[in-house]
Amino acid sequence: MKTILIYSGGLDSTTLLYWLLDKKYGVKALSFNYGQRHSRELEFAKKNCAKLGVEHQVVDLSSIKGLLKGSSQTDDTVEVPEGHYEAESMKSTVVPNRNSIMLNIAAAWAMSSKYDSVSCAAHSGDHFIYLDCRPEFISSLQQTIQLADEHKVSIERPFIGITKAGIAKIAEELGVSIADTYSCYKGGPIACGKCGTDVERINALREAGVVDPTEYLDVDYSKQYA
Amino acid sequence: MKTILIYSGGLDSTTLLYWLLDKKYGVKALSFNYGQRHSRELEFAKKNCAKLGVEHQVVDLSSIKGLLKGSSQTDDTVEVPEGHYEAESMKSTVVPNRNSIMLNIAAAWAMSSKYDSVSCAAHSGDHFIYLDCRPEFISSLQQTIQLADEHKVSIERPFIGITKAGIAKIAEELGVSIADTYSCYKGGPIACGKCGTDVERINALREAGVVDPTEYLDVDYSKQYA
Repeated sequence: MKTILIYSGGLDSTTLLYWLLDKKYGVKALSFNYGQRHSRELEFAKKNCAKLGVEHQVVDLSSIKGLLKGSSQTDDTVEVPEGHYEAESMKSTVVPNRNSIMLNIAAAWAMSSKYDSVSCAAHSGDHFIYLDCRPEFISSLQQTIQLADEHKVSIERPFIGITKAGIAKIAEELGVSIADTYSCYKGGPIACGKCGTDVERINALREAGVVDPTEYLDVDYSKQYA
Repeated sequence: MKTILIYSGGLDSTTLLYWLLDKKYGVKALSFNYGQRHSRELEFAKKNCAKLGVEHQVVDLSSIKGLLKGSSQTDDTVEVPEGHYEAESMKSTVVPNRNSIMLNIAAAWAMSSKYDSVSCAAHSGDHFIYLDCRPEFISSLQQTIQLADEHKVSIERPFIGITKAGIAKIAEELGVSIADTYSCYKGGPIACGKCGTDVERINALREAGVVDPTEYLDVDYSKQYA
């Protein structure tokens, strides 16, 4: 099996990269620069692909930024919310239709490469504020992708039944270098520890009993959400 | 009604722009630079939007070019075929999944703008080599787009039941400046008259009895396909 991995450089997709290689998949990795604050993650993506000998391409979607007013991920006038994903304020992290855009570009690469699938690291804790993580969305998208080309590309989400703590355990088993993954939405040189994705990451590693070598500006803030 | 128009700067989408304005739609126009040879068309798109007072954005997808080997539109090692669309060689003009990528980005803009729809100028002569022009593809894509966001965006194709000659007649009725549209796949300063899209354009204008002020390197070549 050959697959195009949507690869952010965060904990989940880095673990999926190791997992796919462990399962003997042929893998090419695709990252996106869509004008997000946290493009620092792309440096980790590049480093990990070089280390593992995986072809890596970065598609620059930053010119989309002008279209997407109102999301804190792309609009510099909106502050990044702190706290837990459940909070209403986290809706401002949604980039409209982002998953469709990324998965369709990955599918284009799969079609031109005659690869079998695109893979993404969605997990069971991905939150319902992200409509485009839901199963009914993914199966509709896969149908659309398969209608678009003679070469039929499927969508694989091997971690969809696993919690983020479960991914952390897999990361440890497969020898993922957790220090070489980056998730923080604020995108600073040291992860903040307070944005939704850092809170989730810290608590997942803690729950899994995995030593977290990452430096955070505030590592205790997350405990209120554990 | 408010709509985001996928706007190439060619005859069909320029006519649709005039048509939507005539029907009192609110319109924003979206063009793509995806590393195609014929980016000259974007200059005409910009000019027409300025003339009509329509907001125009160009999304740069040229970094996708590296992913799409094997299409003459994006791969400089593949020659642009001449002749009629029906020819097998025209398959090399297909950019895999291109319509999905463009329509999904337009949908993202519609979602963030709370616009009702995205519009494209597909017509009854769009050829079956382009799987992603077919009705079953479009209805699956619309379903996927509507599952991706709380704001429901539809896809409009007002010319889908009309031939290209029919579009040429509408262009004349609405006062479209045909000299300010550009279609040639080869992208030279003067349209070649021999690529699939020029052959189709010349014959459509001729069939409609519309005077074609466009200069072509070879205007007679198309007659064998009329």
